[in-house]
Amino acid sequence: MPSTAPGRVSQGERSQSMRQRLLDATVECLVDHGWSGTSTVLVSERAGVSRGAQLHHFPTKNHLVLAAIEHLWNCRDEAYRAAIAELGEGPDRVRRVVHILGEQFSSDLYVAALELWVAARSDEALHAAVIQLEHKIGGGVHRLTVEALGVDESVPGVRELVQATLDLVRGLGLADTLTDDSARRRRILDRWADTLDQALRAAAGEAAQEGKGR
Amino acid sequence: MPSTAPGRVSQGERSQSMRQRLLDATVECLVDHGWSGTSTVLVSERAGVSRGAQLHHFPTKNHLVLAAIEHLWNCRDEAYRAAIAELGEGPDRVRRVVHILGEQFSSDLYVAALELWVAARSDEALHAAVIQLEHKIGGGVHRLTVEALGVDESVPGVRELVQATLDLVRGLGLADTLTDDSARRRRILDRWADTLDQALRAAAGEAAQEGKGR
Repeated sequence: MPSTAPGRVSQGERSQSMRQRLLDATVECLVDHGWSGTSTVLVSERAGVSRGAQLHHFPTKNHLVLAAIEHLWNCRDEAYRAAIAELGEGPDRVRRVVHILGEQFSSDLYVAALELWVAARSDEALHAAVIQLEHKIGGGVHRLTVEALGVDESVPGVRELVQATLDLVRGLGLADTLTDDSARRRRILDRWADTLDQALRAAAGEAAQEGKGR
Repeated sequence: MPSTAPGRVSQGERSQSMRQRLLDATVECLVDHGWSGTSTVLVSERAGVSRGAQLHHFPTKNHLVLAAIEHLWNCRDEAYRAAIAELGEGPDRVRRVVHILGEQFSSDLYVAALELWVAARSDEALHAAVIQLEHKIGGGVHRLTVEALGVDESVPGVRELVQATLDLVRGLGLADTLTDDSARRRRILDRWADTLDQALRAAAGEAAQEGKGR
């Protein structure tokens, strides 16, 4: 039984909704105006939240942006897991995984994170916090990709091929920030997927041969 | 015969040297303080050039930064050509090309360009100029890479493999901006070089087979 009467919103729910609106508005601001164009005043206005409430939830711009990226990542992580769970088996699984990654790395999350990452390069206070967040997000994407590809990273060369794939989509994401690069990206990812598939099979084959040779 | 007496510096040479110092100081500022921490005042001070002279050469921050990136690219382009000219033939040529690219994309030029690219995302005045500059630089790197690898882009798949290589090093460059990523980058580039070499040979082989089949 709810503690408040029907139709009424509790203090906790209101606070949660405000927090959510602030985080969403922060990502929108980063995407539309970049790091230097994003201010706590602009975010409060966009979220329709008073300055007092905003300061209560997030005392500084750095707190706000770090929380916004982490929040968006948590949402995307779920969507990413769901997309991978639906993949099923089949000969073009590698291709589909690679295209899912390409989409992840050309999303609003990527653009907002890029703004934060670049700002952290020359902001000492941000630097340590961003490295920690990057470990969490980067590590999460890596583990999910290994799982999605169904590969064994103890096989020599496999880890580097997975990492190269993630660095490729990071580079493709950057190329997409100034102009729509989706057509070029599709062609490159198709070719990469074929090449990756063959390289992963070759690595697994070599490891199996070595295992037999022992 | 020089138009000025020995030991004297002409007006043109002084102006050229000032321009050069301003461009160098701009890149240093971008690397050390990022886009938002770079101002024409800071650049003038760092270059030891008066505000008046700075404004004469480059009326705005945008002019200054665009000219600085283009200037640095012209210098790097020459160094890149020289490195490739010295490569010689040999079985590990692809690997050496890939590592030269990895170095290019983790240099001060890359970091300074990244600051400009990201700023241009949300600055209308910069956007068109940066796209034009990116065409020039991106096109130049692409042509040089094709030449260095000695590949034929009319063979199906080859163009995408070259582009993927450039997008990979772009992504690796980004990973290097917050922490020193050179050890991981080396391992990834070694693996990619082997994979790329095989994929390029396979593409050329298929094209030759098709040619015979006609």
